[in-house]
Amino acid sequence: MTARTLALAALPLLLSTAAIAASPRPPALAEVADRALEDDKLAWDFVEGITTEVGPRQAGTEAEARGRAWAVKWLKANGLAKIAIEPYQMPTWVRGEERAEIVAPYAQPLRITALGTSASTGPDGLTAEVVYFPSYAALEAAPAGSLAGKIAFISHDMKPTQDGSGYGFAGPARWTGAALAASKGAVATVIRSIGTENHRTPHTGGTTFPEGVARTPAGALSNPDADNLERMFARAGGQPITMKLVLTPRDLGRTESGNVVGEITGRDPKLAPVLLACHLDSWDLGTGAIDDGAGCGIAAAAAKHVAKAGPPLRTVRVLFAGAEETGLWGSKAYAAAHKGMPIYAGLESDFGADRIWRLDTNFTKTDPALYKQLAQAVARFGVAPSQEVAGGGADLNLARESGAAILDLQQDGTRYFDLHHTPDDTLDKIDPAALRQNVAVWTQVVGILANRAEPIEKGETGARR
Amino acid sequence: MTARTLALAALPLLLSTAAIAASPRPPALAEVADRALEDDKLAWDFVEGITTEVGPRQAGTEAEARGRAWAVKWLKANGLAKIAIEPYQMPTWVRGEERAEIVAPYAQPLRITALGTSASTGPDGLTAEVVYFPSYAALEAAPAGSLAGKIAFISHDMKPTQDGSGYGFAGPARWTGAALAASKGAVATVIRSIGTENHRTPHTGGTTFPEGVARTPAGALSNPDADNLERMFARAGGQPITMKLVLTPRDLGRTESGNVVGEITGRDPKLAPVLLACHLDSWDLGTGAIDDGAGCGIAAAAAKHVAKAGPPLRTVRVLFAGAEETGLWGSKAYAAAHKGMPIYAGLESDFGADRIWRLDTNFTKTDPALYKQLAQAVARFGVAPSQEVAGGGADLNLARESGAAILDLQQDGTRYFDLHHTPDDTLDKIDPAALRQNVAVWTQVVGILANRAEPIEKGETGARR
Repeated sequence: MTARTLALAALPLLLSTAAIAASPRPPALAEVADRALEDDKLAWDFVEGITTEVGPRQAGTEAEARGRAWAVKWLKANGLAKIAIEPYQMPTWVRGEERAEIVAPYAQPLRITALGTSASTGPDGLTAEVVYFPSYAALEAAPAGSLAGKIAFISHDMKPTQDGSGYGFAGPARWTGAALAASKGAVATVIRSIGTENHRTPHTGGTTFPEGVARTPAGALSNPDADNLERMFARAGGQPITMKLVLTPRDLGRTESGNVVGEITGRDPKLAPVLLACHLDSWDLGTGAIDDGAGCGIAAAAAKHVAKAGPPLRTVRVLFAGAEETGLWGSKAYAAAHKGMPIYAGLESDFGADRIWRLDTNFTKTDPALYKQLAQAVARFGVAPSQEVAGGGADLNLARESGAAILDLQQDGTRYFDLHHTPDDTLDKIDPAALRQNVAVWTQVVGILANRAEPIEKGETGARR
Repeated sequence: MTARTLALAALPLLLSTAAIAASPRPPALAEVADRALEDDKLAWDFVEGITTEVGPRQAGTEAEARGRAWAVKWLKANGLAKIAIEPYQMPTWVRGEERAEIVAPYAQPLRITALGTSASTGPDGLTAEVVYFPSYAALEAAPAGSLAGKIAFISHDMKPTQDGSGYGFAGPARWTGAALAASKGAVATVIRSIGTENHRTPHTGGTTFPEGVARTPAGALSNPDADNLERMFARAGGQPITMKLVLTPRDLGRTESGNVVGEITGRDPKLAPVLLACHLDSWDLGTGAIDDGAGCGIAAAAAKHVAKAGPPLRTVRVLFAGAEETGLWGSKAYAAAHKGMPIYAGLESDFGADRIWRLDTNFTKTDPALYKQLAQAVARFGVAPSQEVAGGGADLNLARESGAAILDLQQDGTRYFDLHHTPDDTLDKIDPAALRQNVAVWTQVVGILANRAEPIEKGETGARR
């Protein structure tokens, strides 16, 4: 089967629908993938449905629970097997009121959103002088105690990159900036959004305070507001700039979240399965279209399409993880619940819905024959080979821990951080043709893996994406 | 002066700065305009300053008053004469809380903003079934009484056009949609934003209820939210869709607003002046960068540049009108206060900051020599002639009423309604090169007019822009 698939994949496939319909045998995998490129409707149906009928699905809330129920219904309607919800408990934080304004010398409101785990200012807010840091490094260089009573403003700028590497450079301002500022005495922190567009829709996302460090209020200004605040510093000539900040998020304690699983059962269920992961939760501001409704749509559609070429040798398991955004609770719970379960290969879709442009694996050098087979099979979809080492996404903990082969079907992330964690993460941002390209590439790759008996000679696994 | 200017304008002017500095006489107008294209900083300084140091300037509020004070200071610093604030009273409406959510069958929040003059729902909001109208015409066709107890949803779509004509087709949904729905029994109205982009930043703007008609709550959903609500209707299969709406705006009664005026006094102050208009107020959501800080920057910069070619024959008067957005109160007050004052020619900048592409006047056919002179003079800036009849902007009431020549230096409006009346009306949306092109064209045109003694043979004036 594999050899035939590869041969077909190398051809410009233009078999007519009539010819396929007349065939007594199921269509070849490559045909199925090509058809997905033309007319897959499953991924769109999933993401359109969940964003319209459920909308935001913040982890640990009733909205995420509605998302799980919706996903179970969808998986059933689409004929997957062994569909289940696997619940777990997690700490839940929810947004409250959020307002910021410059009080002096240039009174005007600014658009802000609280970062996940931010403390509350209380309903009356807090008012303090703002200290400006153009970068995370500038904050690092600030003397101990120098921010006592002040609001730190970290204006670290992020640039778009195709591979998302800009997130690694700018991300620390959000991930640990508030804790760092608090360690130097800051009463609150506002950051420039970790985002690459210029809309007044600030980017939320989690921030982390080390164990034992008192949390402080922390928010992100939209990029135009951060620009404006920078201009105020340029114009104020050393006069203090005072901000009033009102953020009233709440901790709900431990609440229920859960993973949703389902599968296409393989012809030999004793063989280690291929695991397709994504996450079902989203931040509360948008509707979770590109992050990560699209990813679950892609994974589920690919699983369905693979089966059109006949039942696969290995089981293809789909994991719609819960609570990724707020600390990978779903991924951790899945790894703990299925500890010891071997995984043949793990793939995750969680970087939007733009086209896949590169194939990274953790066996590129150690199993070059398989890598070459896969790379040849997806070249016709515009996917390039690479020497980058795959680390897998956040929801592949089980796959990594079990020593599985990991494949990163890298999506073009140039536009991703325009939308990431903002209210603008909505269905209209998805290009249906790019979404279908994702499904086609996944179908091709997952189909090859799921129909392969031989072990994979994997090498070192890269850093988690 | 005029003849020499025209001759120079026809040449590709490349006089060196040194040659200009050595000249005992002021530079020719065309030189000044060319230099503005290269290096005008005045318009940017104005719009950067007012958006940074004042920000939103809603009519009738203390923020608009701070805007007037800021503008007076700027005009003084830039050497204009006869600077004054001309106050008047006007009814003021201010935004309160604004939230919308679908309660059933697909519970999720929607992004909404109240329309100017909207009634309040009260703090507890109102919950009602939504009735969907894909267009204004569909609402017109709804039977009397058919909306009793319902929320009307008018989803009239707007398309971008270079000349802004799309606003004329879609605008009625905002301008009179709520009143029309109320006349058929609706308890509230939500419209698709009158805007051309897909961000979750709804477009505000005024809506009008006829005298004696009880106002109802009225808001605009962002375009992605309107899309989502349309999809809900498509998926609901006839089930009622219920919305909870909370809008708590307030009427403040009559408060003070005002116009700011200044001038470059002409060599013959008895001659009718050239009037350059814009508006200083903005909606509260953005910082009033493209609507209309840029316009005031362009007008004031042009007045200053014209004087660099020597004092003009006629006075160039600048009107920074107040309260344009909420009912043209400033324009009306200025026309009333200066009734009978002749105006030679009126120009207004209030369509963003993108480049000027076309010259419309109300004397194109009746004074073809002057029109040809002007059209030739601005052709080098990429401005096309046209047979369209100028009507002038909203703040040119006095000019229209006095029978003045009217010129519309038409700006490219393709992007304008992406930003119009949204939080995204911020400085970063202005292209500095396009802003300078505006200043150059204005300098050239205003300079020709202000140095011309002859009367203008004007024809019919077109519809107000």
